Amino acid sequence: MLQRIDHVGIAVTDLEAAIERYRHFFCLGAAATETNPEQGVREAMLALGPDAVGAAVLPASYVQLLEPLGDDTPVGRFLARRGEGLHHVGYAVGNINAELESLTQQGIELIDSRPRHGSLGASIAFVHPRGLHGVLTELVQAAHS
Amino acid sequence: MLQRIDHVGIAVTDLEAAIERYRHFFCLGAAATETNPEQGVREAMLALGPDAVGAAVLPASYVQLLEPLGDDTPVGRFLARRGEGLHHVGYAVGNINAELESLTQQGIELIDSRPRHGSLGASIAFVHPRGLHGVLTELVQAAHS
Repeated sequence: MLQRIDHVGIAVTDLEAAIERYRHFFCLGAAATETNPEQGVREAMLALGPDAVGAAVLPASYVQLLEPLGDDTPVGRFLARRGEGLHHVGYAVGNINAELESLTQQGIELIDSRPRHGSLGASIAFVHPRGLHGVLTELVQAAHS
Repeated sequence: MLQRIDHVGIAVTDLEAAIERYRHFFCLGAAATETNPEQGVREAMLALGPDAVGAAVLPASYVQLLEPLGDDTPVGRFLARRGEGLHHVGYAVGNINAELESLTQQGIELIDSRPRHGSLGASIAFVHPRGLHGVLTELVQAAHS
């Protein structure tokens, strides 16, 4: 089951400029950056909402900024084709293996049939946009769940 | 302050087909549809997560499916240019007027300088994608807040 929107992934050409802009306009706190060679990106997760509320009541949702490590990467090709903008949406799930099994049984086209390493230690898997009205869709099981 | 991701808006050519697909693959309950002539769309809000949790602890987040009312509408032009896919992201805010005032003072380009009517009785306003790395961004003050 999709529990909530975990994050939106935004393709940008300059990660530091994008972090600064989100900080300036929306006061989203400076985020650690992380390099994910497997996905060909350098990225930042910007947590929404006050930390206190996030810790006590609400799981956080994030703006994920993605800068490609090169032109010949998924995000690099996306930028060349479409320019900066919304790249994908990630939904929180409780059990990613059960979710992938259910989707496989229903015949949806997966990019990842098994979970792999995502941001902040999460287990993630992508569903192909062809089966979901052009939307690249990520399932996210948080590290602590 | 951006509290959390309220929804992602997805442009589709056939609203009923998209609702059926999200129901089939993700068990998102049948949603009421709503026509918004001002925005030139017919739309459905699909709530994520179990209702009980949503009511008791978590504000819901939504998948918003958007079918244009005609080719010469924002979503109609988006579909002609890009095909189906992620159209915008909406963030929940506590006080939309304060948020718009703050953004205006910081010089960000707004599409709506004043709130207007959005889905589920919310007050909403759009920020222009030019100032936000190509992302059409919506602020949402829920009807009950």
